[in-house]
Formats: sequence, structure tokens, C-alpha cells
Amino acid sequence: MTLTLISQSKCFKGVQLVYSHFSPTTQCDMRFGIFLPPHARENMQPLPVLYWLSGLTCTEQNFITKAGAQRVAAELGMIIVVPDTSPRGVNLPGDKASSYFGEGAGFYVDATVAPWSRNYRMYSYVTKELYNIITTNFLVDVKRTGIFGHSMGGHGALTIALKNPEQYQTVSAFAPICAPIHSEWGERAFMGYLGKNREFWYKYDTCELIKKRGWLGPPILIDQGTEDTYWKELQLHPELLQSACQQSHVKLTLRMQKGYDHSYYFISTFMEDHLRYHARYLA
Amino acid sequence: MTLTLISQSKCFKGVQLVYSHFSPTTQCDMRFGIFLPPHARENMQPLPVLYWLSGLTCTEQNFITKAGAQRVAAELGMIIVVPDTSPRGVNLPGDKASSYFGEGAGFYVDATVAPWSRNYRMYSYVTKELYNIITTNFLVDVKRTGIFGHSMGGHGALTIALKNPEQYQTVSAFAPICAPIHSEWGERAFMGYLGKNREFWYKYDTCELIKKRGWLGPPILIDQGTEDTYWKELQLHPELLQSACQQSHVKLTLRMQKGYDHSYYFISTFMEDHLRYHARYLA
Repeated sequence: MTLTLISQSKCFKGVQLVYSHFSPTTQCDMRFGIFLPPHARENMQPLPVLYWLSGLTCTEQNFITKAGAQRVAAELGMIIVVPDTSPRGVNLPGDKASSYFGEGAGFYVDATVAPWSRNYRMYSYVTKELYNIITTNFLVDVKRTGIFGHSMGGHGALTIALKNPEQYQTVSAFAPICAPIHSEWGERAFMGYLGKNREFWYKYDTCELIKKRGWLGPPILIDQGTEDTYWKELQLHPELLQSACQQSHVKLTLRMQKGYDHSYYFISTFMEDHLRYHARYLA
Repeated sequence: MTLTLISQSKCFKGVQLVYSHFSPTTQCDMRFGIFLPPHARENMQPLPVLYWLSGLTCTEQNFITKAGAQRVAAELGMIIVVPDTSPRGVNLPGDKASSYFGEGAGFYVDATVAPWSRNYRMYSYVTKELYNIITTNFLVDVKRTGIFGHSMGGHGALTIALKNPEQYQTVSAFAPICAPIHSEWGERAFMGYLGKNREFWYKYDTCELIKKRGWLGPPILIDQGTEDTYWKELQLHPELLQSACQQSHVKLTLRMQKGYDHSYYFISTFMEDHLRYHARYLA
């Protein structure tokens, strides 16, 4: 497996890199961003690593240019890895027709329905292929791995952590889709990728996974803006996550952030909190 | 003059706004971003204001989404105003043909050559029209006004401050075009907007202005990355600015930043320094 360097820029004494590689999992070229803090050059100690999963329509660029994470990651000595949100350029019929399905909307599932099942395997891509690429090519401490994300990527981070607690020790999210089986976005995506049988949807639904598997890691940190249009439109359902956590005795820190919307202006405001949260538990 | 609100997002307890308005100066609709720190709501004291001028190809979006300035501006209680870099949608022949001329490349001059002279009047737009809009519509302290920018916008900030020291008390820049009359970008733009007679170019050249007018304000702060392709290609010429400042006894803090390029990764890294620099002298 060959990594091709697409770009590199020094940033806060560290370096923001973007690589591409052919992915056997998704059968196409994939890109990811990786920020290496100055500590990565200065010593040969393995560093903690955080995976960021982005929301609908995003590539790796949104987070690395807008979230303002590098400043704090450089201080804390954390590596941040940012995959794309779907396969690209595979040209399946209708894969560019909607913002909620197809390109930019992989939903971090392994599709089981043709024609999507050949390429749309973002769950395996993130948890196996990308995880192995990072572990093999960069000096990361796998025992100090966290995951976080935004909106569709918050759903991805939560479901992936809940299903792989041995691999991800900490998890947090910004305005995550907490109950995709009860949101229009999630229903559209799961119908397309997983088919009509809703039984198969449950294993990608955070609330169902909390009730079934629990979570023994540190309290899950969630920020949700109160001026978030998608929260008001019932796409996100943090209240269902709160109920599921109470029912299952899972510790949740849900912060309703007054006046904030769904944008990177919201994300950048609370990014430092999330990075320090992960650093504290991964220390 | 009516301001139309295009977007607003809470950010670091302040608010990032984008407005549009019809500009008599450029004879088209113009947009600008303005960040109001929490102080703008909390008290009725006029606040210091900083104008940011962006580089080639940018709109107001680049700075407001990528520079990471809101965090520090919110702390310091500073307003930041970000205009677009040119008129848009006026459809002059060739105005979209190049990244270095026409749309996204107004160069902060008042064009004197037809057909550009009707709309491409960014110097007057920034120094008069936008300045008056901000002074009239927002609670700013005009005695505490600074200006800064990047690349073409660094050229804009420097020339505008040097020509209007009563209006702008502080000036700084990231990788500015210090001597446009000696750079390909500047020659192309000035030839198009100002005509063949190079005498008319001098009043928009920072080095010439320094020699002619000097600068009695605080030391000018400039950051320049040493891995900046455009610096290597001799578009920027900070060494000519250094000579001009020495010759004219103007105080300059020129920091060559090792390993940094021309991107917003460089800008975001040193943004906090620049904001604190302006705040210190505008306090």
C-alpha cells in the first residue's frame, strides 16, 4: 500500500499533511488529512491519536481548514487523522444527486445493497484499513486512540467507538445524529445502503448500541447548539441519546450550547474543550 | 444605503456576520464579513476595529472561515471587518480569465483605465465607503482603527495605512506584496488598472510610499514564511521593504518564519500575534 503525499503545510510548529492511497476496501482512491504536532519530530515517543469523522458533504478539507484544531493539538502533542466521508469518483447511478446519500454521505456503514455494497464500506475503511495505515506509517500509541466527529460524523464516531471499545478509548461529538433510525437523513441512507429490513439498521444506531452494549469508557462528551436548524428539524435527537444513556447507566455530558448553529463556527468554538477532554483521558 | 444580512453564526460568544449592500463606488453589490465580539452586546462602549484585506482569489469567506481570528478577537474585544477583494458580477471582458487580474484581484487601487475604471475602485471602497458604513452602523472607536492583510491584501493594508495615517493607527501584514511595481503580479495588475505610465503606479507601491511619506505609527509588523513559493518567485520582496524602511527611518518588525508557506495554515499560526500587536497599540 503506497501513500501519495498531496500537500503539506507547516502549522503551529507541526505539519498538516494530506495523503491519498488506493483503498481495497472502497475500491477507489481515498484521501485523508493527518496533523503531526511538533512532538512527532522532536522525539520518538508514540503519540496519542484522534480520528475526526466529518459530516454530510464534507471532504477532509473542511476540518483541517476550518476547525482550528491544530493550535491545541500542537500544544497537547496529539495526532489528528481526518478521512473523507465517502468513496469518490466511482460513478454509481445517483451518487451525486443528493447531499444526503452517495458522495459525501457514506454514513460510516458497510453497505449491503447493490450497487453500493462494492464501494460504500466506510465502516470497514475507518476501523480497519485507515486504522492500520496510521498504525503502520506513523508513530501512534494505539492504547491512546480517541474518535470524534460532527453531525453524520458524530454518528460515525459514536457507533464506531461503541462497537470497538478496545480500539477507541474516548469518544465525543458535535451535534451528532444520535438516532439515525428516527431521522430522515438516517432513514434515507440506511434504506439505500442497508435495505428495507430495519433489523439491519440497529447495529448502526447509537441509541440502540448504547442500550445493547453500554459504554465503560470515560463520560461521552456531546455539544449541541440550540440554534441548530437540523436539531430543530429532528435530525439529531440528543434527547433520545440522553434517555438511552440514563436507561443503560452510561455517563453522558450533554451540553446544550445556547445560540450556536450547526456550522464550523460552532465547532471551532468548542474544539479546544474536546481536544482537552480526549487528552485528559488519553494521558 | 441598506445592509442585507446574508448570514450570522455565533462564534466564541460573539457573532460572525456577513452583509451585502449596493456600492455606489463599485457600481455593484458588495459583501463584507464583520465579527462582533461579546463586548459589542455587553456594553455600549465603542470598540477598536481591525480591517482585514484578503489576497488573490479570495472572498470574505476565506478569512472568516480559516484564519481562526474570532477566538482572540472575542477575548480582546475587537471588531474585525473583512471586505471582498474585487467587484463581482459586472462581467467585463476578461474579468474571469486570470487569478491575478479582474474578479478576486482588485489590488486595492482605483482603476483609471476603461473599462475597469467604472467598477474597480477598491481603494475608495475600502477607505471611504466601507469605512463610513462601519462607522455609521456599528459602535466602533474610529480613533482605534487598524488594518492588516495577506499577500495582495498585505499590499492593500500597507499602502492604505501609509496614505491615510490619520484613519488607520496600526498596520501589519502576512507575506505582503511589498513592491508591486517590481513583481509580475503587480505589474500585470497596475498595467491593466492604471495604464502604461509607471509614474501613476508609485502611489500604490509600499516601498515608494515609505520613502515618500514615512510612517510615524507603531513598528510595522510583517510575517513572511521561508517556504512561501511566491516569495521564492520574487512576487513579495520583503527585502525591498526592509531597505526602504531603513532608508526612511521607519520601524519595521520583519519576521522570517522558518518552514511556513503562503497558506492560511501560516496565517492562522501567527494570527494571535498580529491581533495582540494591534490590540496593544490600539488600547
